[in-house]
Amino acid sequence: MIKVGIVGGTGYTGVELLRILTVHPDVTVSCITSRSEAGMPVADMYPNLRGHYDLAFSEPDVKTLAACDLVFFATPHGVAMRMMPELMAAGTRVVDLSADFRLRDLDVWAEWYGMPHESPEWAEKAVYGLPEVVRDKIRTAQLVANPGCYPTAVQLGFLPLLESGLVDPSRLIADAKSGASGAGRQGKIGMLHGEVGESFKAYGASGHRHLPEIRQGLSQAAGVDVGVTFVPHLIPMVRGIEATLYAELRNPADFDRLQALFENRFRDEPFVDVMPFGSHPETRSVRGANNCRMALHRQEQSNIVIVSSVIDNLVKGAAGQAVQNMNIMFDLKETLGLEAPALLP
Amino acid sequence: MIKVGIVGGTGYTGVELLRILTVHPDVTVSCITSRSEAGMPVADMYPNLRGHYDLAFSEPDVKTLAACDLVFFATPHGVAMRMMPELMAAGTRVVDLSADFRLRDLDVWAEWYGMPHESPEWAEKAVYGLPEVVRDKIRTAQLVANPGCYPTAVQLGFLPLLESGLVDPSRLIADAKSGASGAGRQGKIGMLHGEVGESFKAYGASGHRHLPEIRQGLSQAAGVDVGVTFVPHLIPMVRGIEATLYAELRNPADFDRLQALFENRFRDEPFVDVMPFGSHPETRSVRGANNCRMALHRQEQSNIVIVSSVIDNLVKGAAGQAVQNMNIMFDLKETLGLEAPALLP
Amino acid sequence: MIKVGIVGGTGYTGVELLRILTVHPDVTVSCITSRSEAGMPVADMYPNLRGHYDLAFSEPDVKTLAACDLVFFATPHGVAMRMMPELMAAGTRVVDLSADFRLRDLDVWAEWYGMPHESPEWAEKAVYGLPEVVRDKIRTAQLVANPGCYPTAVQLGFLPLLESGLVDPSRLIADAKSGASGAGRQGKIGMLHGEVGESFKAYGASGHRHLPEIRQGLSQAAGVDVGVTFVPHLIPMVRGIEATLYAELRNPADFDRLQALFENRFRDEPFVDVMPFGSHPETRSVRGANNCRMALHRQEQSNIVIVSSVIDNLVKGAAGQAVQNMNIMFDLKETLGLEAPALLP
Amino acid sequence: MIKVGIVGGTGYTGVELLRILTVHPDVTVSCITSRSEAGMPVADMYPNLRGHYDLAFSEPDVKTLAACDLVFFATPHGVAMRMMPELMAAGTRVVDLSADFRLRDLDVWAEWYGMPHESPEWAEKAVYGLPEVVRDKIRTAQLVANPGCYPTAVQLGFLPLLESGLVDPSRLIADAKSGASGAGRQGKIGMLHGEVGESFKAYGASGHRHLPEIRQGLSQAAGVDVGVTFVPHLIPMVRGIEATLYAELRNPADFDRLQALFENRFRDEPFVDVMPFGSHPETRSVRGANNCRMALHRQEQSNIVIVSSVIDNLVKGAAGQAVQNMNIMFDLKETLGLEAPALLP
Repeated sequence: MIKVGIVGGTGYTGVELLRILTVHPDVTVSCITSRSEAGMPVADMYPNLRGHYDLAFSEPDVKTLAACDLVFFATPHGVAMRMMPELMAAGTRVVDLSADFRLRDLDVWAEWYGMPHESPEWAEKAVYGLPEVVRDKIRTAQLVANPGCYPTAVQLGFLPLLESGLVDPSRLIADAKSGASGAGRQGKIGMLHGEVGESFKAYGASGHRHLPEIRQGLSQAAGVDVGVTFVPHLIPMVRGIEATLYAELRNPADFDRLQALFENRFRDEPFVDVMPFGSHPETRSVRGANNCRMALHRQEQSNIVIVSSVIDNLVKGAAGQAVQNMNIMFDLKETLGLEAPALLP
Repeated sequence: MIKVGIVGGTGYTGVELLRILTVHPDVTVSCITSRSEAGMPVADMYPNLRGHYDLAFSEPDVKTLAACDLVFFATPHGVAMRMMPELMAAGTRVVDLSADFRLRDLDVWAEWYGMPHESPEWAEKAVYGLPEVVRDKIRTAQLVANPGCYPTAVQLGFLPLLESGLVDPSRLIADAKSGASGAGRQGKIGMLHGEVGESFKAYGASGHRHLPEIRQGLSQAAGVDVGVTFVPHLIPMVRGIEATLYAELRNPADFDRLQALFENRFRDEPFVDVMPFGSHPETRSVRGANNCRMALHRQEQSNIVIVSSVIDNLVKGAAGQAVQNMNIMFDLKETLGLEAPALLP
Repeated sequence: MIKVGIVGGTGYTGVELLRILTVHPDVTVSCITSRSEAGMPVADMYPNLRGHYDLAFSEPDVKTLAACDLVFFATPHGVAMRMMPELMAAGTRVVDLSADFRLRDLDVWAEWYGMPHESPEWAEKAVYGLPEVVRDKIRTAQLVANPGCYPTAVQLGFLPLLESGLVDPSRLIADAKSGASGAGRQGKIGMLHGEVGESFKAYGASGHRHLPEIRQGLSQAAGVDVGVTFVPHLIPMVRGIEATLYAELRNPADFDRLQALFENRFRDEPFVDVMPFGSHPETRSVRGANNCRMALHRQEQSNIVIVSSVIDNLVKGAAGQAVQNMNIMFDLKETLGLEAPALLP
Repeated sequence: MIKVGIVGGTGYTGVELLRILTVHPDVTVSCITSRSEAGMPVADMYPNLRGHYDLAFSEPDVKTLAACDLVFFATPHGVAMRMMPELMAAGTRVVDLSADFRLRDLDVWAEWYGMPHESPEWAEKAVYGLPEVVRDKIRTAQLVANPGCYPTAVQLGFLPLLESGLVDPSRLIADAKSGASGAGRQGKIGMLHGEVGESFKAYGASGHRHLPEIRQGLSQAAGVDVGVTFVPHLIPMVRGIEATLYAELRNPADFDRLQALFENRFRDEPFVDVMPFGSHPETRSVRGANNCRMALHRQEQSNIVIVSSVIDNLVKGAAGQAVQNMNIMFDLKETLGLEAPALLP
């Protein structure tokens, strides 16, 4: 059994990790920390876990955490980077669901997160854990930076187009939409049901923290610096991300090759589903599941490739992908704990 | 492996059976029928099942069904009763999720369902499958009538009060609320998102088909004919039922005994969770799970017992309870396939 | 033109007052206060008001307010009672949308609101402003306590039954459900979209602040102290309240008289609509409008009267009723500013 | 008083016309037709209209309609074009909310709507009624083709960019999202709450009927044939459209001029609101109102102009714009009946 610790367990990614790990046969959760809720049983905060866990939240303690085989960080940015040197020194392996170790360029990180980075050494050593791109490095990594929710949906959809060089990398557009759980579980007025319900809007349209992460990932796939426009939107629902991606095909004749290109790219990927050309993936088809489903479209004789890509922001966009990364790191079957179908309707 | 057939698989209870059975270790689904969609792969209609099933819908055929160990009926009322005699003669076991075999009194059945009952023999032999009440009979039953969604939430919440005789059985009120999936997957204008979204209303307040089923179950628990008022309401959401139940305690001093009474009644029930006195169960705490969670309340010195009871209408209110019944019928661990926690948020 | 001031304008009742007053021909809003947002144009906070108001929020100042013909308080409880003596002394008229002056018994008030009442003199003089009950007193009142949202829906539905003495006043049950805007616009975790969306629950089932207000109003209508159980629920939507009311008819033969009784009781009421017997009022049929719609039901030969009553919690349950009260106080046509139909769908 | 008839009044645009016309001082609705519901009072179908209309649906009759000053068609496509010649001959003026007269090129019309056009003469004479573009022609038109919902949001947002020639007209992208009422009020399974609720998806991504209409309007604004990609999405809510528009600025230095360009373009438009640069218009800020609100964005030093544009699909996207057109046609104040602010929250 892999002994797991979770830091910052009171948020939505915390409870989602617990939910997924319940059905994982090879894992035991030995501690889950929360400064604010120390002492409270997790099942009191999250009644869906009643009968599944006896665990209570505890004060974060590096020694206890260091004794785990793996620690998940489900914290706001700025927390993991401070605790990382000590944990790394102890040899503990970590999957960090926060943004602390996602960006290579720490100046960019500092600019977008409003503070200097405090663990540059580990920022360099961290593996950006998108399994569909760097599975081998994840296997041996001590520290995996779990990708953001939007960046997962956007990168997976663009990957085959950029890796193949078939599209103009300077003209990428990602119009993405997310349910409200993506904003986390903090008492912000703007995220009240009374504000979010029955309404739709763009946000962060002039610049969102996931933009540099997306640009970094896409540039790596393309082999050149890409030009990408990314606009997130808030959907009046709880879970799910849909990203509609637009790219310009260099040679319109290549349209005929695209479906096969995508299917081949993801043929061996257990969690990426290329649907038939012209399909419309629904977010509910991945609700609670670790899948990314996507489909290709073309309008008349246009040279614009349209990709619609959906994930559950809390699963493939956070806790599920973290467990997938853990499975890879510990040489387990990659789908362990992640096999149940999505909840539809 | 238990060989299972599903009749009428295109509705919400059909897809939910498939979803649950995916993770059931001892079951294989050998056929799923649909007149209207024969030939279509189930994963084309329900993309959450992509990668989980190769099965396609087939024309209903009694011979094929009779060769199964168990057949689930997920059909509108009136279908199962016509096919039942032949299946029963063949020795096949059945869990009927429709209303055909739920009522003892076939005159009442005919009145509420607007047609004469065509299988009175099996209506008499059928076991009304609420495991928390008749587990032993289910074990050996050939035909189990799976309870309705509202009746499940309402009966479980009232059971300890009626069995103990502590409340006046002539003054029961059940104010129940359901998500829209309870109405099934038919193209009715009244169930459009444009009609249901952002609105709330009672319906069937002058009489709903689940009323006689509720009355039958509560009367059996009380040992006398009860007087019960049942008003269902439509919530602008997809899944979940909450029932707020009101009963008058004969002796207000008994209030102190109620929490223990409930806890004892359900102590060994794997799917009934009595929460601490004064809790407020949320439908999301059982979303996708086979649990019923309930809690007791009292207002000041009132003699009115308030019980709030929640289930997922498609799980404990339909497909989950059907699988629970199957597990009991085949001497499997009762919780097989039903162990994952609810999806929250 | 009536010169109006609004205290505490940043909440949902504040913006709703502004929305309604926009189309009121005889009113001009001369000031709207907010400590936290002083200086901000109201249209910056509430973009639906862009083009309708040039006004900015200002610091609350009693002198400025006293110069108004009418001041609306749209504040949390505890604010209005402190400013009231000075405003009353200045002769200013007030409609208080908060709970400060709703209860006659100040010990009960202190118990439920957790502080002593600071303006007992005006608590005694205040008129509880349910126009359908005390229109004449409102006309001449200096201070009107605007009823709460639940109490409005519940009282209107029970009124004819209690005034006529046809039901047992000791056995009243009010099962009420509200959209999330009823909780106001404060950054509480429990009211996040991620918590409220796609879920349903009871809350305050052991006692809610509107219970004593409901009991006071119903007791006055019945002429005796009533026994009433009131359980509120949270609907995953923004606006609207539905209350399903249960009462026991003393003489079942009276059922035949009930529809006429209700229609006669509200015949001259511009905002109460008794729908045909057996109807199911929807909250959307009153969205944005000052109407209360209700309908009666009976189940088979039961002696339980069922009333379903719907209002928009922000309109007839708050700002609309406040404007209705203002119209009465200033001898205007009672429906001024409140004539547009509800927004459906 | 202008005597108005409505053909096809049972859908969402029908009830919305009735709602708006209730508060219009210069209009009387003399008939509203429905083949399926003839004889039913409109207030029985739409209870928000109880107390506002005595009218019942009647069989469509050209003579009666011809006696109106203005007839609104709120019918599915294919109906208006058949009745138009007779009405036009009678001199009746018409605003057609259906798609029948929106496209100039009738081959394109036939291709997208699957039938030959039956009134080519009037298709040529019809004025495409986007007031912000052709107000003068609307004034004297006998037949106005009311623009579609998506085309309204998309055209208004692109107009200043195309008219000014500042962007590349061959690379326009419109990523649009709509609430479910846009699909009308027909019993389609795909539009059930159980299907639409808590989910998000693109649809019509390979080609939607509004694409040729959008292309026609944008090409006219640009003075050249534009290349536009248009992907609609379905939001789990009832009302509202948000369109995020992407265009490539020929000269990035022009970014500084854009806000002024937009403000000047719409300075005199009563229903178009250019919000401050970097704002995020919400659909709820126009719910129930005839406004289009929009805002501009730029990401870092990109040359991509981002415009977010919101309307209520049933108001500025249908019934409200139709009333605006009527006001123009009859030389009334353009805002009559359309002055109330949006319903927020």
